[in-house]
Amino acid sequence: MESILTDAYTIHFNAQAYAALNSVLKEKNYSKIFILVDENTHRDCLPLFLSSVVTTTDLEVIEMEAGETNKTIDTCIQIWHALSELDGDRKSLLINLGGGVVTDLGGFVASTFKRGIDFINVPTSLLAMVDASIGGKTGVDLGMLKNQIGVINQPQMVLVMVDFLQTLDKRQVNNGFAEMLKHGLISDESYWSALKGITVIEALDPFIYTSIQIKNNIVLKDPMERNLRKILNFGHTLGHAIESYFLEKDEKTALLHGEAIAIGMILEAFLSFKLTGMGKHQLEDVKNTILERYKKVSFTKEDIDGILQLLKFDKKNSHGQINFVLLQYIGGALIDQRVPSTLFEEAFTYYKE
Amino acid sequence: MESILTDAYTIHFNAQAYAALNSVLKEKNYSKIFILVDENTHRDCLPLFLSSVVTTTDLEVIEMEAGETNKTIDTCIQIWHALSELDGDRKSLLINLGGGVVTDLGGFVASTFKRGIDFINVPTSLLAMVDASIGGKTGVDLGMLKNQIGVINQPQMVLVMVDFLQTLDKRQVNNGFAEMLKHGLISDESYWSALKGITVIEALDPFIYTSIQIKNNIVLKDPMERNLRKILNFGHTLGHAIESYFLEKDEKTALLHGEAIAIGMILEAFLSFKLTGMGKHQLEDVKNTILERYKKVSFTKEDIDGILQLLKFDKKNSHGQINFVLLQYIGGALIDQRVPSTLFEEAFTYYKE
Repeated sequence: MESILTDAYTIHFNAQAYAALNSVLKEKNYSKIFILVDENTHRDCLPLFLSSVVTTTDLEVIEMEAGETNKTIDTCIQIWHALSELDGDRKSLLINLGGGVVTDLGGFVASTFKRGIDFINVPTSLLAMVDASIGGKTGVDLGMLKNQIGVINQPQMVLVMVDFLQTLDKRQVNNGFAEMLKHGLISDESYWSALKGITVIEALDPFIYTSIQIKNNIVLKDPMERNLRKILNFGHTLGHAIESYFLEKDEKTALLHGEAIAIGMILEAFLSFKLTGMGKHQLEDVKNTILERYKKVSFTKEDIDGILQLLKFDKKNSHGQINFVLLQYIGGALIDQRVPSTLFEEAFTYYKE
Repeated sequence: MESILTDAYTIHFNAQAYAALNSVLKEKNYSKIFILVDENTHRDCLPLFLSSVVTTTDLEVIEMEAGETNKTIDTCIQIWHALSELDGDRKSLLINLGGGVVTDLGGFVASTFKRGIDFINVPTSLLAMVDASIGGKTGVDLGMLKNQIGVINQPQMVLVMVDFLQTLDKRQVNNGFAEMLKHGLISDESYWSALKGITVIEALDPFIYTSIQIKNNIVLKDPMERNLRKILNFGHTLGHAIESYFLEKDEKTALLHGEAIAIGMILEAFLSFKLTGMGKHQLEDVKNTILERYKKVSFTKEDIDGILQLLKFDKKNSHGQINFVLLQYIGGALIDQRVPSTLFEEAFTYYKE
C-alpha cells in the first residue's frame, strides 16, 4: 500500500514501514532508542518488531501497565524517570509500540521530556491504527476526565503493520471498528455500507487504509480543529461521558472506548433524527448495524444522571455550552449543534428499546 | 518604553502593558480568566494588578506554594484539577502572575490543559522579567533534575511592570541581576561595564529593557536553539548542577538560581581562560565583579563530586558529551566547547582562592 502523507509526517504500511524506520534510524543518528510497550505488546508484538529493526544504536525497552486506567500522569512520571535514569537525552528517540493508551501517553511523554524529543508511533490495535495514528493528539486522563492533559504534537512517522492485528481478540477488533463505522457515518455512505459486510479480520486491510485516508483528509483540511475536524467527534460527546462513567464506577465492568462510542453513535443518531433531519430509516440502520456487533448495555436512571453530569466536563465545551456533532444523513455531518437537555433521556430510552 | 516584538508575541511595558491586556481581554472573549499566583504575589502583586484590569469576564485566582521546590508535576496536578473544578475550558485564559517558578510552571500547565489554552505571563521578579519572559520555555523539575519536563510554547503576550520590583528584597534583585550580567558577558562588553555601576533598584528600568532586547535578538536569530541561542547557557552548565545539588541536600541552604549561575559564570570564565583564550585580566574582572555582589559559597570535596555527578544529567547533553559555552573575551561567546574533566576541580579551586 502506498504511504499516506499527513501535514507533518508519513504513515507507512507493512513491509515498507520497516524499511522507512530503518532508514530514519540510520539517517538521524539518535543517541539512544527507547521502546515503550505494555505487558501485552511486550509479549505479543515486540519480538516480531525487533526482528525487523536494523540499527547499531543502543535500544532500551520501557514497560508500562496496560489499560486505560494507567493512562495517567503517574505513569508518565514513571516513564520520565526511567528515561532520565537510562540516560535519555534530547537526541533520544521514543518508539511507542502499542494501542492508543501507549501511543497517546508515549506521545505526551516524548513531547514533554526535556521540552520534546522525537517519537514514532507503531499502533498495534485496530483502534490506534485507524484513529490515534493521525492528528497529533497526545495526552493522558486526569481522574475521571479523559485526555484532559496533553499537547498537539506530531510523531516523526507512523508505522501501520497489520500483522499485529492477529494478536487481538474479537472485542479488541470491534473496539477499533467503531471508529471505522464513524468514518462512514460522518463522510461516506458507501463506505458505511461496505463495512457492514466485513466478517473476518483478514478482510480488514484495505478498509484500514480507507479509514486512515478519510481521517487524514479531514485533519489536513482543518488541522487546528476550528470547524470541519470537529465532525470526528460524532458519537464521542456522549460516548466519552459513558466511557468515563463506567471506568470510575467500581461495580461496573469498564467499557472499551469503541464500545462506549458505539453507544454514543446510536444516541447521537437519535438526536440527529430529532434535530437535524436524519430519516427514521437511517436511524434504524445505525442502531441495528451497531447492535449486531456490540452487546446492548443496560443503564439505570442513576447511571444516566451520572453520565449527564460528566458531560459538562467534556473538553469540547466552551462558555458552558455543550456542542454536538449531528448527522443530516448517513455520510453528512453538522458541527456545533446545540441539544436541549430534555432530549438526552429520550435518546437513552430509544437505545434501550 | 516601546513594546518589543518576539517572533510570536509582544512584550509590553508598564502602563502600556495594562492597556494591551485590557484590549486583548475585550477582543478575545475568553470564557473565564484564571490568575495563577503564589502566596507572595497573591499578597504583594495581585491587588495592584487587579486594580488596573478591566473586564466583565469571570476571574478566578489559583494559588500555588512559592519556591523552586514546588516547581513539580505534583503542583501541576493540583492546578489542572483546580482548573477542571472551576470549569476551565478550551477558551479559558491563564494569567501567570509571579516569578520564574510561576511563569515556567503556569506556562506548562496552560500548554497541556485540554491540549493547550492561552496564557499570558506577568513576571514579577527581576529574574523572570529579563530571562523567563522571552523564549517560550515552559517546564517543571523532575526530582533533582531542573526543567526536565516541559514544552516550548509561546504566551499570548508578556507584560513587564517594573513597579512589582519594589516588592523584592536585595537577594531577589541579585537573583535576576546575574542573568543581566550574563547578557553583557556573552554579547556586549559595554553593557557589562555599565551594569557594574548600578547601585539602586530605581536605576534598573532601562537596563531591564536592554537585557530583554539582547535575549530577544538572540532567540529571534535561533528560535530552535540549534546554535547561537546556546550562548544563553553560559554559566548554566555548572550553575544548574550547583543549584540542583544545593536544592537536594537537606543540610545546605538552597541557592537562588542567580546565585548558582553567578558561581557558574566564574567557573566557566576560568574554563574560558584555560581553553578559549580569554585573558587573565578579564577573568579577574568577571570574578571580582561577581563576588562584589554575591557572597562566596564554600564547597567541600564531597560537594564538588556530587555536583559533577549531576552534570551528566544536564539537558544540554547529547550522546553522553557535555557541551559548554565559553568566552573568547567579554562580549564574545563560543558554543559546543568540550572541557577535559580534569579542569573542573581546578575551576573550583580558582573560585575558592
